[in-house]
Amino acid sequence: MQTTLLPSDHVRAIVQRIGLHELMDALIARLTTAFATFEPAHTHSPARSGFNYTDPELGLIEWMPVMTGGRVTIKVVGYHPSNPRARQLPTILSTVSTYDTQTGHWIAVADGNFLTALRTGAASAIASRALAAPHSHIVGLIGAGAQAVTQLHGLSRVLPIEAAWVYDRDPAVAHSFRKRAGFLHIELIPVDASGLAQLVERADVLCTCTSVDVGAGPVFADGAHKPWLHVNAIGSDFPGKTELPLSLLQRSLVVPDFPAQAMQEGECQRLSPTEIGPSLVDVVKNPERYAARRETTTVFDSTGWSLEDHVALGLLMDYARDLGLGIPVDIESLAEDPHDPYAFAAPDGLRVLHPSRQNGAVNHGALRA
Amino acid sequence: MQTTLLPSDHVRAIVQRIGLHELMDALIARLTTAFATFEPAHTHSPARSGFNYTDPELGLIEWMPVMTGGRVTIKVVGYHPSNPRARQLPTILSTVSTYDTQTGHWIAVADGNFLTALRTGAASAIASRALAAPHSHIVGLIGAGAQAVTQLHGLSRVLPIEAAWVYDRDPAVAHSFRKRAGFLHIELIPVDASGLAQLVERADVLCTCTSVDVGAGPVFADGAHKPWLHVNAIGSDFPGKTELPLSLLQRSLVVPDFPAQAMQEGECQRLSPTEIGPSLVDVVKNPERYAARRETTTVFDSTGWSLEDHVALGLLMDYARDLGLGIPVDIESLAEDPHDPYAFAAPDGLRVLHPSRQNGAVNHGALRA
Repeated sequence: MQTTLLPSDHVRAIVQRIGLHELMDALIARLTTAFATFEPAHTHSPARSGFNYTDPELGLIEWMPVMTGGRVTIKVVGYHPSNPRARQLPTILSTVSTYDTQTGHWIAVADGNFLTALRTGAASAIASRALAAPHSHIVGLIGAGAQAVTQLHGLSRVLPIEAAWVYDRDPAVAHSFRKRAGFLHIELIPVDASGLAQLVERADVLCTCTSVDVGAGPVFADGAHKPWLHVNAIGSDFPGKTELPLSLLQRSLVVPDFPAQAMQEGECQRLSPTEIGPSLVDVVKNPERYAARRETTTVFDSTGWSLEDHVALGLLMDYARDLGLGIPVDIESLAEDPHDPYAFAAPDGLRVLHPSRQNGAVNHGALRA
Repeated sequence: MQTTLLPSDHVRAIVQRIGLHELMDALIARLTTAFATFEPAHTHSPARSGFNYTDPELGLIEWMPVMTGGRVTIKVVGYHPSNPRARQLPTILSTVSTYDTQTGHWIAVADGNFLTALRTGAASAIASRALAAPHSHIVGLIGAGAQAVTQLHGLSRVLPIEAAWVYDRDPAVAHSFRKRAGFLHIELIPVDASGLAQLVERADVLCTCTSVDVGAGPVFADGAHKPWLHVNAIGSDFPGKTELPLSLLQRSLVVPDFPAQAMQEGECQRLSPTEIGPSLVDVVKNPERYAARRETTTVFDSTGWSLEDHVALGLLMDYARDLGLGIPVDIESLAEDPHDPYAFAAPDGLRVLHPSRQNGAVNHGALRA
């Protein structure tokens, strides 16, 4: 019984063989099915938990578990903002493991970074398909980093997007967005801070995907916007870290991805329970009930849900299987006599392998030599 | 930057090269140091958490995290009692991963079963060395399964053990203990239920390591015993699951491994806070303060502490390094432009690898073929 490893270069091979558009489309389809068939009694996703610290430097290691469909999937995420400058490593390192609930077997583990980026874009695509106006063709991006690429990619697969206005507080990031998102063949219009109000005013769909500091929001001022504005709020993921003007939230239908978590870490943390709308699952399950809201102001409060990681891992593992990718390894101990913890290592009678050490003398010399 | 895999057969190779006695001695030494230098401000071990379920069958998948010494270590444990009969798999499958808190890098993952068995025996050895009478030479084992092997092994490394009385409610398990523990060269005296009171009466050190059902304890009746009796209570690991007579607990110095967890899952769950003694860490840090207790009745309430898993993993990884064992793999994505989630997979301008699929047509046919 083997565990399949899907390292980063096998994920790369999947992207190169399948193509980014087909991957995004396939994930949107699978996530839509997962939401449409979601049953709270059969999917359990406790709040993410972890360690955050400031020593040796600011950082966080957390785990996001979910149990669904006979599997437990756990993403372990490291967030270490000094990595790029101090060590030429990415800020985020993550891996996603899945286990069988019948046996406890560790089925697979994959690099989690691409998977997370793709599922965040796919979730916004699903929310926008359900809540944005069908004629939406202009996107406003506030924050033009990594998340902006997958937001625009996801939106472009479900709406007739023609142009995106792009703002970032770092002009170099706004500038490089053209290179990173060029593959989408969408007109990209960079703006500086003086153009931010116009960006909001012109957008059919707005995506906020900033690294705003705790307590520093909102990232734009409330003001004129289209009556059917749909906002995907992506950046809020920590208590006190929010992006949207409270007045905008309060007059919008606010749809969280994972309500319990959104109330802790998302835009919803600023709202009372009666100000929070249906979850994205509710919206996907009842499209007719919310169809009229597409012409009103709506917000998708995206905090990142472990169920999305689970579905994305399943998609990548299916492609890996079909393409002959993934590395099988035997890691778990299987041969064990349940009553004998040493049986796997040493047959009966052959256990004292170093009789000279029987009297408790510990000799590490050989190891150090 | 690679992750080192230490599969079960590499753990086996370590045991065969180093020997069980030296491994136990080395782990006792490292754990003693870890306890003696323990600082609550520098080691964080939240309560274990997980999923337990009865569908498809009774089972549990849980994670036990700890942060200490610049590492986060997480053991993931599956407990599925129908595995042996239904699937010829062990009841428990487990793996232990460790991450660097400076970068978030996943340093290593090892099979966790042998590691867990060894550390449970080592912890009892440390407790017994500190709390049992120095002249202890008779052990009583109630429950003769896997834990009994490592309990007796650990005890034999720190006390002048000459004989063990062995009881199990399953006579076949009591009988096979002689084969499993023969390598210790200790006189083994099996008893049936009629001999249980005498076993307790004769023991200098008693180990309870049963799978008693919730609410079914105690596993022996209170009665005559030596005034210096020390008990290692191993089996209690779930709310309602306890092994010892309450009256015995109440007149003993009860020393938990991990107080917060022991109050939830251990023998301590039946005691008020004032009835609970110092932790094992306190005892190891202050041996003179508790030396006189060696001639009185004491209980080590062992629920299994994630710090012990962390120390045991460190020991095995050090042996693996010195012996040239362990399999290095590149699993995490490192090459990523922090602003471009697709850069690792597809260079700029080469992203639309399947232009015919640009219009959203999803073609899975090739995959299924």
